Amino acid sequence: VKEEDLIAYLLSQKGQKALDEGIGDDCAILVGKGGYTLLTTDALVEGVHFDRRYFSAYFLGRKLAVVNLSDMAAMGGCPQAALLTLGLPSPPEPAWVQEFFQGLLSRLGEFGAKLVGGDTVRNPGGIFLNLSLVGHATWAPVRRDKARPGEIIFVSRPLGASAAALELLQKGVSCPDPLIQAHLDPEPELLLGQALAQKQLISALIDISDGLALDLKRLCRASGVGAILFEESIPFHPLLSGLSLEAPPLHYALFGGEDYALLFTSPPASQDQLTNLTSSLGRILFPVGRICAETGLWLKTRHGDQIPLDAKGFDHFAFGHKPSS
Amino acid sequence: VKEEDLIAYLLSQKGQKALDEGIGDDCAILVGKGGYTLLTTDALVEGVHFDRRYFSAYFLGRKLAVVNLSDMAAMGGCPQAALLTLGLPSPPEPAWVQEFFQGLLSRLGEFGAKLVGGDTVRNPGGIFLNLSLVGHATWAPVRRDKARPGEIIFVSRPLGASAAALELLQKGVSCPDPLIQAHLDPEPELLLGQALAQKQLISALIDISDGLALDLKRLCRASGVGAILFEESIPFHPLLSGLSLEAPPLHYALFGGEDYALLFTSPPASQDQLTNLTSSLGRILFPVGRICAETGLWLKTRHGDQIPLDAKGFDHFAFGHKPSS
Repeated sequence: VKEEDLIAYLLSQKGQKALDEGIGDDCAILVGKGGYTLLTTDALVEGVHFDRRYFSAYFLGRKLAVVNLSDMAAMGGCPQAALLTLGLPSPPEPAWVQEFFQGLLSRLGEFGAKLVGGDTVRNPGGIFLNLSLVGHATWAPVRRDKARPGEIIFVSRPLGASAAALELLQKGVSCPDPLIQAHLDPEPELLLGQALAQKQLISALIDISDGLALDLKRLCRASGVGAILFEESIPFHPLLSGLSLEAPPLHYALFGGEDYALLFTSPPASQDQLTNLTSSLGRILFPVGRICAETGLWLKTRHGDQIPLDAKGFDHFAFGHKPSS
Repeated sequence: VKEEDLIAYLLSQKGQKALDEGIGDDCAILVGKGGYTLLTTDALVEGVHFDRRYFSAYFLGRKLAVVNLSDMAAMGGCPQAALLTLGLPSPPEPAWVQEFFQGLLSRLGEFGAKLVGGDTVRNPGGIFLNLSLVGHATWAPVRRDKARPGEIIFVSRPLGASAAALELLQKGVSCPDPLIQAHLDPEPELLLGQALAQKQLISALIDISDGLALDLKRLCRASGVGAILFEESIPFHPLLSGLSLEAPPLHYALFGGEDYALLFTSPPASQDQLTNLTSSLGRILFPVGRICAETGLWLKTRHGDQIPLDAKGFDHFAFGHKPSS
């Protein structure tokens, strides 16, 4: 049973309407008098998402915030309030708890969100962290289901650093600080997501939590389209080239996950305005491919071949028991 | 580290305002244009809150809904949307998942709430279920911090059935169906909570999740008051008298927990209106004591003694490792 199957089951139930409510998107959407309310929830589990050998309480707090803030960014919403469920295997060290809260509150506060409630429980198997995040938007949130053939596919920054760092951290070998930071303390793209949504220059938006290939596949499936990625255009972190990794850098950029970059589509006619907007934010975008009508995912290699891309990515049950991204 | 300590720490952080936001109450409160938004979250963990020997997937789904719906009832709010985090130790049986969702959706739907999103993760130690519930109210939510000396303390129904059933279920001995139902499928008091909040006849409101004594202590501490309970007035489920239990029925009513009855305070001057309101709902209320100015909790026994009441109740870390209420 995969998350997609559960969502499909859920949508088959009476009274559930996917399109109005963002079910299966990065956030659920409630339409109210003062605009849109956005809801998301994400968990981090010890031994599955992290290992305490390399993850301190402070950075766990920050990352728990970021994985949820990134879902808010992926709708173009503004974070507002959070609820924490803290599951701990045994009575916790006060210092651990304090550092965890410092991390969590620092990241939430940076983007205007407050921790307003929660639950603390014992979880015999290890640390289980869950955050639910409520946000709002006065503009229409950007869903993942409106990509159209001919549109350009963008990512908001180079990919692969987080997954490469995870490999090195798990091996216990040295890893450059910028890569470690990409894994322990990634940057959520809230300002960019909000600007893109507000200006209505993009058609579909998602964040890359499980790898470019898998998250693009999700965007395409929701939109009923396909996509071609151009190998030469896919940006990966420059430090990846000099490292001794198990796979080439492109692998981490396509399949690594936990990048928390934004992935979105935009019509060719909007390109000038899009460039103006991102320049004004001091950002550059990376065009990585094109949406096509035929469903499926392809990689156009640097040699000009077009090969089907198997959208591997992180699935908790498909990937077995090793700690993974 | 208890939940109360974490809340106290949280409130000590910059930018956190307890009174406006309901932090530490059954729900957090966000004030918006269209009224009040209410937020709550609650988890159920295998081996801590339940045991699969006696808890089916269907009733787990229903109970996960109820523990959160009861927090909404305890503010007088109307449930609207829920987010589920489903942590499972191994690839789940499709039948188990389907029955769990049937239970969850049936209880949420009964009270007008939809499941709009969630996260599925692997949790090596066992099943970890978390629900976050969003609700609203056009009237002011009732907090737990406004009880005043001289007010009457009420509970909304007889207590102790859930805790007594848990004891028998854990022993594997037979238990009357109404008691089993009180533990597996308790009734959240949403209609009563909403009516009490809307009519403004009560001063402080909480639900009994960890036992009358402990939840009354919480209400008193938040309000800066004390309370006297009258032994002869405390209602317990009539079936408790005929059972072979480890403690007398009063013990389960005072300390048992998981009743999900409402506990509230009301000024003497409001009693006629309160009686009219509850009659119109076909309900009766149980006056169990009085709020006093001196902080502390006392039991006035049937012999006329007034003894200090040690507010035992469920604390995950204080109670050690046995599955408990």
